[in-house]
Amino acid sequence: MAHNLLQGKKGIIFGALDENSIAWKTAERCVQEGAEIVLTNAPIAMRMGEINKLAAACNAPVIPADATSLEDLNNLFTKAMEHFGGKIDFILHSIGMSVNVRKGKPYTDLDYDFFHKGLDVSALSLHRVLQTAYKLDALNEWGSVVALTYIAAQRIFPDYSDMADAKSLLESISRSFGYHYGIKNKVRINTISQSPTRTTAGSGVKGFNGFISYAEKMSPLGNATADQCADYTVTLFSDYTRMVTMQNLFHDGGFSFTGISYPVMEQMEKE
Amino acid sequence: MAHNLLQGKKGIIFGALDENSIAWKTAERCVQEGAEIVLTNAPIAMRMGEINKLAAACNAPVIPADATSLEDLNNLFTKAMEHFGGKIDFILHSIGMSVNVRKGKPYTDLDYDFFHKGLDVSALSLHRVLQTAYKLDALNEWGSVVALTYIAAQRIFPDYSDMADAKSLLESISRSFGYHYGIKNKVRINTISQSPTRTTAGSGVKGFNGFISYAEKMSPLGNATADQCADYTVTLFSDYTRMVTMQNLFHDGGFSFTGISYPVMEQMEKE
Amino acid sequence: MAHNLLQGKKGIIFGALDENSIAWKTAERCVQEGAEIVLTNAPIAMRMGEINKLAAACNAPVIPADATSLEDLNNLFTKAMEHFGGKIDFILHSIGMSVNVRKGKPYTDLDYDFFHKGLDVSALSLHRVLQTAYKLDALNEWGSVVALTYIAAQRIFPDYSDMADAKSLLESISRSFGYHYGIKNKVRINTISQSPTRTTAGSGVKGFNGFISYAEKMSPLGNATADQCADYTVTLFSDYTRMVTMQNLFHDGGFSFTGISYPVMEQMEKE
Amino acid sequence: MAHNLLQGKKGIIFGALDENSIAWKTAERCVQEGAEIVLTNAPIAMRMGEINKLAAACNAPVIPADATSLEDLNNLFTKAMEHFGGKIDFILHSIGMSVNVRKGKPYTDLDYDFFHKGLDVSALSLHRVLQTAYKLDALNEWGSVVALTYIAAQRIFPDYSDMADAKSLLESISRSFGYHYGIKNKVRINTISQSPTRTTAGSGVKGFNGFISYAEKMSPLGNATADQCADYTVTLFSDYTRMVTMQNLFHDGGFSFTGISYPVMEQMEKE
Repeated sequence: MAHNLLQGKKGIIFGALDENSIAWKTAERCVQEGAEIVLTNAPIAMRMGEINKLAAACNAPVIPADATSLEDLNNLFTKAMEHFGGKIDFILHSIGMSVNVRKGKPYTDLDYDFFHKGLDVSALSLHRVLQTAYKLDALNEWGSVVALTYIAAQRIFPDYSDMADAKSLLESISRSFGYHYGIKNKVRINTISQSPTRTTAGSGVKGFNGFISYAEKMSPLGNATADQCADYTVTLFSDYTRMVTMQNLFHDGGFSFTGISYPVMEQMEKE
Repeated sequence: MAHNLLQGKKGIIFGALDENSIAWKTAERCVQEGAEIVLTNAPIAMRMGEINKLAAACNAPVIPADATSLEDLNNLFTKAMEHFGGKIDFILHSIGMSVNVRKGKPYTDLDYDFFHKGLDVSALSLHRVLQTAYKLDALNEWGSVVALTYIAAQRIFPDYSDMADAKSLLESISRSFGYHYGIKNKVRINTISQSPTRTTAGSGVKGFNGFISYAEKMSPLGNATADQCADYTVTLFSDYTRMVTMQNLFHDGGFSFTGISYPVMEQMEKE
Repeated sequence: MAHNLLQGKKGIIFGALDENSIAWKTAERCVQEGAEIVLTNAPIAMRMGEINKLAAACNAPVIPADATSLEDLNNLFTKAMEHFGGKIDFILHSIGMSVNVRKGKPYTDLDYDFFHKGLDVSALSLHRVLQTAYKLDALNEWGSVVALTYIAAQRIFPDYSDMADAKSLLESISRSFGYHYGIKNKVRINTISQSPTRTTAGSGVKGFNGFISYAEKMSPLGNATADQCADYTVTLFSDYTRMVTMQNLFHDGGFSFTGISYPVMEQMEKE
Repeated sequence: MAHNLLQGKKGIIFGALDENSIAWKTAERCVQEGAEIVLTNAPIAMRMGEINKLAAACNAPVIPADATSLEDLNNLFTKAMEHFGGKIDFILHSIGMSVNVRKGKPYTDLDYDFFHKGLDVSALSLHRVLQTAYKLDALNEWGSVVALTYIAAQRIFPDYSDMADAKSLLESISRSFGYHYGIKNKVRINTISQSPTRTTAGSGVKGFNGFISYAEKMSPLGNATADQCADYTVTLFSDYTRMVTMQNLFHDGGFSFTGISYPVMEQMEKE
């Protein structure tokens, strides 16, 4: 499926780690849809990942940037505009990490430096990206920014721990900046709240298999895949959705509005 | 526990069927808290129920009224004000019924006369009660109205069928009338979204045991009981909560904001 | 802008009255995007409207149907499938009417027959459409249904009156049927909550100019137009959004998540 | 009004600065309702405030604690339990501060150290309080914790700036910890989303008068006062609301569910 939905558009994709990443799929789809892109990731993630393979397939430069560093972000936007010969139309923010989760700290025994670090990487990074773009006037009118989030921002999934709080903060930043960037340049900013997805990053969360199967059973259409998320993101980058902003959009096969499903009811009756 | 929270207040309790009813418990609690009450129910429900026993215990008159009949409601409010020698301070609306559910019609094969009947009894009845009170100027300033609802108004519980739609309508009516009665007489109107409760009415829903046990496992504090719902309702009738209006208040041990719980995760892993 | 997003798809558009209608614009856009469509409206609305002009432009048959009549809907789906030589991929439901609003009845003095009529036309009509399609197995897998709604379903806009309650009911029906049609045929059902739009139908609401200008001032991107709504609807009918279901999607330039805007603050300071 | 609702209960009140503070009013009301309390505030806030006056009136010790210091919090809970001769039943968290707002930094030009500081003081402080209590096993079963928040966590009020993001984070922490403390000790944790209130802290926000008057005009019952907030908080500390947890409760005269009000419509029509 490719309809040139993003013809002539230029974008930056944050967070493509390997071919399981939603950002990876989105990069590929954007290019299929006619966009030119720049890829970026934290230097450390780039060493782990295979981003150069993606860069080759997408004919896209890779500009490393730690999304918590204003200097790196300045450099990224400046170089990206040079590369494109103009401003940017879309940004995907797919960055999230909790040190507390990685270190196995339970939610009732968090380390607060780790907590701040997680907020910084997972949420404030979006603000930094937007503030940098705003100051450099780097986005075209009707530009579109999407950040990936998870329903744990609204409801408790206990093992998701402080990552849930970081996602709440991310969603709030997205709304807040959506107002300010909207009135200035008609830039729209939304979050996509995606089904649990078997990415390399996602797999680190304890109990992940449990809730991926629960979500699958609970969702009338099943869990949304990374490929489907990329498709959906393309529509939000396109000109078909210009008046959608400051929203958190569930892309989850109906999970978010299902209180109980028949398969879960059956499972509940098992001894 | 009794603290005279409703001393000097006068109220009407709709929907006390038998001692399992939330309305029954609420009637008792209101009286314990110092209120005087009038009991009412549909003539048909009264024949099935044991409301006279409650009336005796509460020293309260019973004034039958079909809540879908404006004539009956007019009579009810008029008589109640005569009985009290003045206006009314609080109303509990605990009325709900789906003919489609009773007749076992699946949601994809509804009868539309039944659907309208269900909406009429379960939701428009609240509007009729409020409109009657409004026209008769029957409520004191800062009067408080509570209607009982269920989270199926927000998320799908498939066997709850068109009752879920009726509850959505009920909640909307509560908000809408809350605005109008608020600006006129500072009357506040809220819904309480209660845990699934083993009442005589609730038991009729297919798969009820399934979701009561699911809800129990999912709620950090377990399911809220009818007695606890009565306690909570008392606070909303009291003067401690004067500025709470047009809200849907979950009284459910945390179910509404729990995405998954440890006991449900364990259950999901069973073969 | 046209990208063949709906190539090969077949759909039914309810509610195109005249060229101000969102349904009218959506019909045009669907055809531009490669779809074949059938137009339908209530016989009475057809007499008032200019649907034949649209039909000619879209090369589409018009099959009259009162959306409150199961017989008419049966006939519509049967004829549409004959016309298409196969099943249907998408449906737009753009039907709403409140007799109480038309007759100028305030919310605190509603006529209950009118209220039921409004619910029947504005909300139960969606259930009838879906139930008819379901029974006839008229929708292809991954079919997509969109119904238009308004934020009055969540928050009070006093002059919107019982239309707000009807929209709440519509959204609930959309979620409820979304579950059942999702598990059966992967059909997805969503509502779009559109900015106030200067349509012939919308203009009937008292105080409409007041809230259209308020909404304009409050929305960071301004009010979404009917044309933009048509664009957005196209994405929901396309295969790019397959995992979006049971959602209420705000298409409103950010109105829904703006608490106050600078232009409204300035206006509030005027004497 | 006093009904001994908190008889025998023991609580800690954070954040009473002066007699305009919601925490100040809540402290007074808790004592009137039969509770014993301990007062606490940051050493710096105590120098500015008049907390000793309150302490005398409430017959309560003051134990200074910087809510961002685990050491201080440990000392506070340890001393409070010594003072009470037992565990604690309720906590009010009324702490919030944005350095960016104080320094007049616009949302599109935030300082990130200030942002972290604001999150630390306004949101992570709640986690620290709860984690300290949890580790010391300092709360009785059915203990109740309330944190004060504002609707800017859901919708944009542009001058509220990064304080809105901090409140989103606070609400998420409240839900997350509510789950964990609920399953361990049946402790319930909620936030109250209060009308804008003319406190000494609140007044610092630019444009505050604008939105307090907007909120007043928009709310069917007008803005809730600090006294009324204290009344409401008392119900949440009492045993009448045991099954309410992980909720964000609007206490705002109906503001949160009003889309537009008649007074605002009139104001919008002014030239």
